[in-house]
Amino acid sequence: MAKTRSRVGLTMQELALSKVYCLLEPGPVVFMTTAVGARRNIMTMSWHMMVEFTPPLVACVVSRANYSQAALRKTRQCVLAIPTRELATQVVAVGNCSGAEIDKFQAFHLTPLPAACVSPPLVAECYANLECRVVDARLASKFDLFVLEVVKAWINPACRAPKMIHHRGFGEFVVDGEILKLKSDKP
Amino acid sequence: MAKTRSRVGLTMQELALSKVYCLLEPGPVVFMTTAVGARRNIMTMSWHMMVEFTPPLVACVVSRANYSQAALRKTRQCVLAIPTRELATQVVAVGNCSGAEIDKFQAFHLTPLPAACVSPPLVAECYANLECRVVDARLASKFDLFVLEVVKAWINPACRAPKMIHHRGFGEFVVDGEILKLKSDKP
Repeated sequence: MAKTRSRVGLTMQELALSKVYCLLEPGPVVFMTTAVGARRNIMTMSWHMMVEFTPPLVACVVSRANYSQAALRKTRQCVLAIPTRELATQVVAVGNCSGAEIDKFQAFHLTPLPAACVSPPLVAECYANLECRVVDARLASKFDLFVLEVVKAWINPACRAPKMIHHRGFGEFVVDGEILKLKSDKP
Repeated sequence: MAKTRSRVGLTMQELALSKVYCLLEPGPVVFMTTAVGARRNIMTMSWHMMVEFTPPLVACVVSRANYSQAALRKTRQCVLAIPTRELATQVVAVGNCSGAEIDKFQAFHLTPLPAACVSPPLVAECYANLECRVVDARLASKFDLFVLEVVKAWINPACRAPKMIHHRGFGEFVVDGEILKLKSDKP
């Protein structure tokens, strides 16, 4: 575990769990990685939201049509990895094929890194990586909806002013633009 | 009802329900309006996600600390209204006070318009308005999480290339920037 942590530490810096919402609340496209034994997989996902600040809880929809759902149900672990706009091509490529047929990490030149607390891998090229466990699956049967707890969070400190992308359907994305700072008491 | 529809029709144009996800999937800040009898209210919300394309289902978190939760539970109706960056000041103002104390429509110069299918009002100044009914509240007790069905959707056709805002915490927003169009088969 110490070795795992130090390998992650080469490129990633731990982020306080209380700051995770700042990454997901704006609604970026994310990757979700899963693993069953040595068989890892990665999918693209936009249907997620924050549910609680601390410990950070995140709801997401992983359709039964996605190969990843069975792994998520079986292992109850995943990683949410947040790409920047430089990875837009891979975001689309990962979203347009199935892990049932290929190893998407290899096919699209994404680098899996061992996580600290869960089996699914981090994605080295992403700005942030969130190690998660499923804490509620009551709405999985009806809505494919899972509630996750983020148990460890990493960001890449070398990535300054990262720009995320937000999906509008059929490969159209809006990229993060101008930053507005208004006075507000609310987190 | 015909009159209501024609009043809405003055500024709003109906949007096909199958296109609702294009508005919410990018993760913009939204307003939620509710109404108990003549008492209307409006809150700011960023914790929402798509759950199904058609009919469009949306999950959201409305905290029990929000005055709106009781109205949502009681009436099982709401409107999600999507503001553009021109409304950022009102987004923050609405989020920083409670409907228990003031009429926020009046206080922040927002114009309620009658909806077609639900009692809570549309917000005239917003780019889009989604009339919703609560269809599942099983996770409300534990997570304040509600699943809504969008039953009618409106956009303002006069608003060209609207730029939405995405909240990063404490009044910091990222505004929609550049549009990327990549080839993709997925909605």
